[in-house]
Amino acid sequence: MNNSMHAMSHGVFRKALTQLLFVMEKAVANAKTRNFDTSVLVASRLAPDMLPFSRQIQLASDFAKNSMARLAGVEAPKFEDTETTMDELFARVKKTIEYIDSVTPAQVDGSETRDIKIPLRDRTVEFKGLAFLQYWAIPNFFFHHVTAYNLLRHNGVDIGKRDFLGG
Amino acid sequence: MNNSMHAMSHGVFRKALTQLLFVMEKAVANAKTRNFDTSVLVASRLAPDMLPFSRQIQLASDFAKNSMARLAGVEAPKFEDTETTMDELFARVKKTIEYIDSVTPAQVDGSETRDIKIPLRDRTVEFKGLAFLQYWAIPNFFFHHVTAYNLLRHNGVDIGKRDFLGG
Repeated sequence: MNNSMHAMSHGVFRKALTQLLFVMEKAVANAKTRNFDTSVLVASRLAPDMLPFSRQIQLASDFAKNSMARLAGVEAPKFEDTETTMDELFARVKKTIEYIDSVTPAQVDGSETRDIKIPLRDRTVEFKGLAFLQYWAIPNFFFHHVTAYNLLRHNGVDIGKRDFLGG
Repeated sequence: MNNSMHAMSHGVFRKALTQLLFVMEKAVANAKTRNFDTSVLVASRLAPDMLPFSRQIQLASDFAKNSMARLAGVEAPKFEDTETTMDELFARVKKTIEYIDSVTPAQVDGSETRDIKIPLRDRTVEFKGLAFLQYWAIPNFFFHHVTAYNLLRHNGVDIGKRDFLGG
């Protein structure tokens, strides 16, 4: 059992996405108990100029999916960002897990020195694979993942850090 | 350049803690511009039953510090959690960076199979080193780190994901 690029990407993302599904299930149950529609949660924001829950989920999904693909040196499937309901967001997360499971350790391991270029709106960010994982993939993924959790928690969903971390 | 336990712990925490200082500096400047005391931010919460900003910083600090120590198989210094001002929180983060910098790659690399036991209030959690890093150290660290960011953002501090990620 050695540390590897696959272990620190797939391993981290898969567990976190699995716990995200768990937390979302608790949100659905909580909305039912408190008698409001989950669309309220899907559209909720922590500030007027922050992205809503739906986009936080899509972005957590994208950072997991695209990071695995970039480390593997393959093209990631494009997900269209059309989700507007909690059911569709569940499907998005599940589809993301399926994709990252399809990338093999052999494709990703040894990617420490791979050149990775990320085209953004106004610039291109370049990394070697290891720095990409340390400073881009993992922080970006958790940025959106934890914000999604915080949005639910801020709205009174009965979740705690144990739900976020899992067993 | 190979991936390693040190690269994925120290490398990730150090960059994130450095950006945390940067984001906190922007919070201080923003409070000055908007003419309120930073103690408002220090005490702020995303929900009445969530921990305030000060505790989020102390916990992000603890997860970085204690995780490095556990991977190295050494005793971490105890920080007393007495910080009540933004200045004291800056000092806490800087002290954390100093500590994690004092742990050498040689102490941490190869810790994938080290037995790690974490005593909690009501149970003990046990991991091998690699799983500890994937499922405990990194998610716990970002849980508090991103929540601290979200608290500032929720309170109107003019920060964005670029400040969180850094260059």
